Amino acid sequence: LKVAILGVGLIGGSIGLAAGRRGGTHVRGYDPDGQVRARALELGAIDAQAPDVASAVAGADVVFVAAPVGALAEVVRLALDCAGPDCVVSDVGSTKRLLADAAADERFIGGHPLEHARADLFDGATWYLTLGSARPALYERLQGLLRSFGAQPTPIDADTHDRLMACVSHLPHVLANLLVAQAASLLGGEEARLLPAVGPSFRDATRVAGANSAIWTDIYMSNRDALLLCIDELTRRLGETRAMLQAGDAAALSEWNERARADRGVLLR
Amino acid sequence: LKVAILGVGLIGGSIGLAAGRRGGTHVRGYDPDGQVRARALELGAIDAQAPDVASAVAGADVVFVAAPVGALAEVVRLALDCAGPDCVVSDVGSTKRLLADAAADERFIGGHPLEHARADLFDGATWYLTLGSARPALYERLQGLLRSFGAQPTPIDADTHDRLMACVSHLPHVLANLLVAQAASLLGGEEARLLPAVGPSFRDATRVAGANSAIWTDIYMSNRDALLLCIDELTRRLGETRAMLQAGDAAALSEWNERARADRGVLLR
Repeated sequence: LKVAILGVGLIGGSIGLAAGRRGGTHVRGYDPDGQVRARALELGAIDAQAPDVASAVAGADVVFVAAPVGALAEVVRLALDCAGPDCVVSDVGSTKRLLADAAADERFIGGHPLEHARADLFDGATWYLTLGSARPALYERLQGLLRSFGAQPTPIDADTHDRLMACVSHLPHVLANLLVAQAASLLGGEEARLLPAVGPSFRDATRVAGANSAIWTDIYMSNRDALLLCIDELTRRLGETRAMLQAGDAAALSEWNERARADRGVLLR
Repeated sequence: LKVAILGVGLIGGSIGLAAGRRGGTHVRGYDPDGQVRARALELGAIDAQAPDVASAVAGADVVFVAAPVGALAEVVRLALDCAGPDCVVSDVGSTKRLLADAAADERFIGGHPLEHARADLFDGATWYLTLGSARPALYERLQGLLRSFGAQPTPIDADTHDRLMACVSHLPHVLANLLVAQAASLLGGEEARLLPAVGPSFRDATRVAGANSAIWTDIYMSNRDALLLCIDELTRRLGETRAMLQAGDAAALSEWNERARADRGVLLR
């Protein structure tokens, strides 16, 4: 297979490494930053660099767009314009619905790998694919390539994907920021020394606070609708818990807590 | 020093081990459960077992009450009744204000060790102490003993302690439960298979969901006032974030996120 990668930073470059090493393909890469391009070539993440999107995409069987979320729709459109009639174009953006609307094309399959911070970024990782109106044969091709990376292709519709991410990733990020802000305002100045060196529940709950703004502002903005719904639901649930607590209803609190234990066991089995 | 421990389960027993091994003291223990008492003796957590509170406390220089939060006030009162005029009585409860009110005595110092799950439970751990009207000499004695455990005695007033714990521990527990409940309701039944095997931010954010109900219902109930204030503040902050998002104010979201990054750096330095 001939693979083109548009944007060869960390994620794009890792796809290149996986495709070359594990997928046995030829990889051509483009990046608007010439230094990033040169570095990817040096590291063996790409076999050849292209001077622009059109040359990168020409003749490719599979194109991965690894541009920032804010620029994704534009680069995906450009890639579809340049790609041949039998080429599959995919992306790696964290939200999917806006893109699905912008790139309704039988050659487009939205993608979202949940990479881990490990040597083999995609090994065993869930890789969401939103099929939209994609041609089945192209889906088969993309799926086979992703499996060769060690990833688990998981079809999902774009709406469900965005609601799911809002709930299990974007909302936890929002809450992490709020917990930090609240603790900082309580412990402003002098009292900061009181915060225990070891506060494991706070540390874990806020691990993702202040994640890279360039990435996360884009994610929040592009998944605005789903995240607003998620915030509203959390606010409603928080109100219910507040009422139990205010009423001093120990039995209800215990039951609520037991249900959370059982639910987490099922969700993170 | 002669140390008495009332309640010799995990925390009480660990104090006994620390006091015997690291503090070089003689430890007498009482527990309403005879099997727990026998086990503590067998493990060397206590040097002798007492048949009741009065015999355990008789002649002691330092008494630790390690009873469940719901029974704490009663056992502390009983210990103070039995203890000599020069004995310091402390506890290990997770909230402090209710107890400070119930046990205003110059021999009482509220305590809250933030133990870790390690071989040496208290080594390097913050150990909060609420002094109230405690006699300075008794504070010196208790502090010296805790230092011999490797712990860091940290004086704090009971109100501040409870607000701090509500913010950095109890509220994160509440949110963890709510995140789980919300994800479970979104992913009920069929869709549960969509949750990625690897969801690091969700996993971390909900690590403490459904913590032991017997312990946590007591904690929520006993720290009700501070936790209600904390929930109200979070609700207000969540509303502000919602408004930024609804307005599509990317600059404000970035600034809010950057502030969280800076605050967390200061809080968890």
